Amino acid sequence: MSAEYEPLTIDTLSQRLGKLSTLKARLGDDPALWTVQEVGDGNLNLVFIVQGPKGGAVVKQALPYVRLVGDSWPLPLKRAFFEYHALTRQAIRAPGDVPEIYHFDEIQALIIMEFLTPHVILRHSLKAGKRHEGLGETMGLFCARTLFRGSDMSMETAKRKSDLALFADNVALCDITENLVFDDPYFDAKMNRHTTPQLDGLVAQLRADVDLKVAAQHLKAAFCNNAETMLHGDLHTGSIMVNADETKVIDPEFAIYGPIGFDVGMLIGNFLMAYFAQPGHAQAPGSRDAYGDWILETTIKIWATFETEFSALWRKERTGILYSARLFEDQGHTLAAEQALADRLNDIWAHTLGFAGIEMHRRILGLAHIMEFDTIEDEHLRASCEAKALRLGRMLAVNRHVLRDMNEVCSLAKLMEQENAT
Amino acid sequence: MSAEYEPLTIDTLSQRLGKLSTLKARLGDDPALWTVQEVGDGNLNLVFIVQGPKGGAVVKQALPYVRLVGDSWPLPLKRAFFEYHALTRQAIRAPGDVPEIYHFDEIQALIIMEFLTPHVILRHSLKAGKRHEGLGETMGLFCARTLFRGSDMSMETAKRKSDLALFADNVALCDITENLVFDDPYFDAKMNRHTTPQLDGLVAQLRADVDLKVAAQHLKAAFCNNAETMLHGDLHTGSIMVNADETKVIDPEFAIYGPIGFDVGMLIGNFLMAYFAQPGHAQAPGSRDAYGDWILETTIKIWATFETEFSALWRKERTGILYSARLFEDQGHTLAAEQALADRLNDIWAHTLGFAGIEMHRRILGLAHIMEFDTIEDEHLRASCEAKALRLGRMLAVNRHVLRDMNEVCSLAKLMEQENAT
Repeated sequence: MSAEYEPLTIDTLSQRLGKLSTLKARLGDDPALWTVQEVGDGNLNLVFIVQGPKGGAVVKQALPYVRLVGDSWPLPLKRAFFEYHALTRQAIRAPGDVPEIYHFDEIQALIIMEFLTPHVILRHSLKAGKRHEGLGETMGLFCARTLFRGSDMSMETAKRKSDLALFADNVALCDITENLVFDDPYFDAKMNRHTTPQLDGLVAQLRADVDLKVAAQHLKAAFCNNAETMLHGDLHTGSIMVNADETKVIDPEFAIYGPIGFDVGMLIGNFLMAYFAQPGHAQAPGSRDAYGDWILETTIKIWATFETEFSALWRKERTGILYSARLFEDQGHTLAAEQALADRLNDIWAHTLGFAGIEMHRRILGLAHIMEFDTIEDEHLRASCEAKALRLGRMLAVNRHVLRDMNEVCSLAKLMEQENAT
Repeated sequence: MSAEYEPLTIDTLSQRLGKLSTLKARLGDDPALWTVQEVGDGNLNLVFIVQGPKGGAVVKQALPYVRLVGDSWPLPLKRAFFEYHALTRQAIRAPGDVPEIYHFDEIQALIIMEFLTPHVILRHSLKAGKRHEGLGETMGLFCARTLFRGSDMSMETAKRKSDLALFADNVALCDITENLVFDDPYFDAKMNRHTTPQLDGLVAQLRADVDLKVAAQHLKAAFCNNAETMLHGDLHTGSIMVNADETKVIDPEFAIYGPIGFDVGMLIGNFLMAYFAQPGHAQAPGSRDAYGDWILETTIKIWATFETEFSALWRKERTGILYSARLFEDQGHTLAAEQALADRLNDIWAHTLGFAGIEMHRRILGLAHIMEFDTIEDEHLRASCEAKALRLGRMLAVNRHVLRDMNEVCSLAKLMEQENAT
């Protein structure tokens, strides 16, 4: 590879990467026999699948701009560096849940990793109505393990502080979250779009909703300042790959230190939106009802597993500087440690609901929408699905300290689903 | 100066620093005419006063260990680097409130700065019963200005993130706070000491107090993870120099990004302790009552000024990424911005009380005590003063979300003062 950054193409990839022994070992020694496809359907990067006689690999390369928008919106190549460092940490904290890394080239902003096949992006399944065994459990475990183990409850603090400093440089991608998630949906920002005119009235109402806007900014302050753990940073259902019974988490280039509830909340928000999108994809009225129930069950499973695993790690792996056993268990005060755990879970829960609500808004009102809604061709039907998500999102963000558990949240989602108003 | 670190001495200082033009300009050109005193009475560093025919300067040099303990407790020289970077930022954020910097030498871990004279360390005045004009106001302004202007409410976020990363490396001094402030007082840690046997019963009671220990750990989690602003990090009454009508803040080597309420709380906690120490220094019963009232009035003034100035900066200087005017004032929602401000002040208030309470505990139960208590020779009297501070500290830490304002806190302090039990 040359010493200067240059984007790969289908035609140059085999030649440029053909000398890498790690790739030859996996694909076969003769690069002339490799085939290359470009499959990037995300918003930011080049993604190639390279296959040879022995097997395949994925080559992901950052572009110096936002792919979705073009070179008018530059974006640092260093995001590949953050993704690489996040992936290697997640692999240790949640073994088996992220693709294996074969090679990283910082100058080329390029990561070569495991080719997951026959996996698909979860979002496609949620649109198509496909179930995946163990999805909720894996995602709950992934969240609990990565988020607990990247925090001061678990890590040696000098290491955590050095990781905090390392990821604090991920300014450009953070800026996207800071603006597009927390601000833009709540005023008439340039890049916004929504289903119009059907949603115009509701959108105006939300933008005039003082309690909602204050909640969104408090949540933004938490995202910006509560450096509790290394986040995935973009944990929606487009960052999850699934096959019949395996779940893998990809694309942590938005990694940053932030509040534990951010990843969990973004994830939950995307499941709730997928639920509200179901009537838009039903072949006949009610034909997706059972699948909708499965989505809600999975949502409940994610939180339940997260809570159980987080509690287990709290009891077994609390080796960091916070809530030290020398103050609690070692003094015969096990219940004090449990009291502190309950407080922490309450805080994480409120953040989770808040971030879920905001995520549901920005995906309907902001720049980056979700495919499950966007592919509903009947605009009235689409607006009706989206309106329900918007209303529940508002409820979650503003009442994040009031709602008690995920069963209640999913009951609210079902109630909304039965509502007839647009 | 040589390229390798070497501690200065009274005898070598004039020769080693004699070529610095900045020093010659201030002291006089002939270093042979300079006089040098070593005056460091803190726990960590060498501090020299250098005077010449034209004037004076202070030379502060870090030692590679904790001065209070000796070379068995190594401490990185880099703390001078953090102090320098904190001082230069504070000078911009709160003009006139910190000593002017003349020179910084990173290798020698050495800062040359303004010689404040005839200033004394505030703690000495609080023991001696001396009043200082404008003290409460200056400290309230200093807190509001440095803490608001170092945050995402004011700074350009890329700069804030880069400062966050810079100060995140201040691991060793942070470690002192993390252990000595939040943990050690609450179990039988090696370096602890307290007035014994008089306080033994109360100490045992506090160490068995589950709600208190949980509160202390939640506050520790906030200190470690809520990276809201650049803190002074050690803002007690030994870090403040005063003369009759001028107040200056020194010694920010513990600077780190943390919660706004930490500096304010540590400061308030030290004033409340000074209040409880007064009977120990009274020439006759009641002779310090009026001075005690002045301390409480100053405490109230600090918070009132902080609140007023923070609110003014919120309204005039909210140029950062949080609570942006484009979402509030620009939309005709000025009250939404005020609602968000009230929420933030409530949060800062609860943190302030919590950190004040913990500070009052660690200064009586931990390693680093305060002179106002330590110099009370009658152990029964000392224990009685300390016990009141310990009890109020517990009240503040555990009930930080319940107590309403600083008048109420100071009324509680007066109530405690009148209590007769030891």
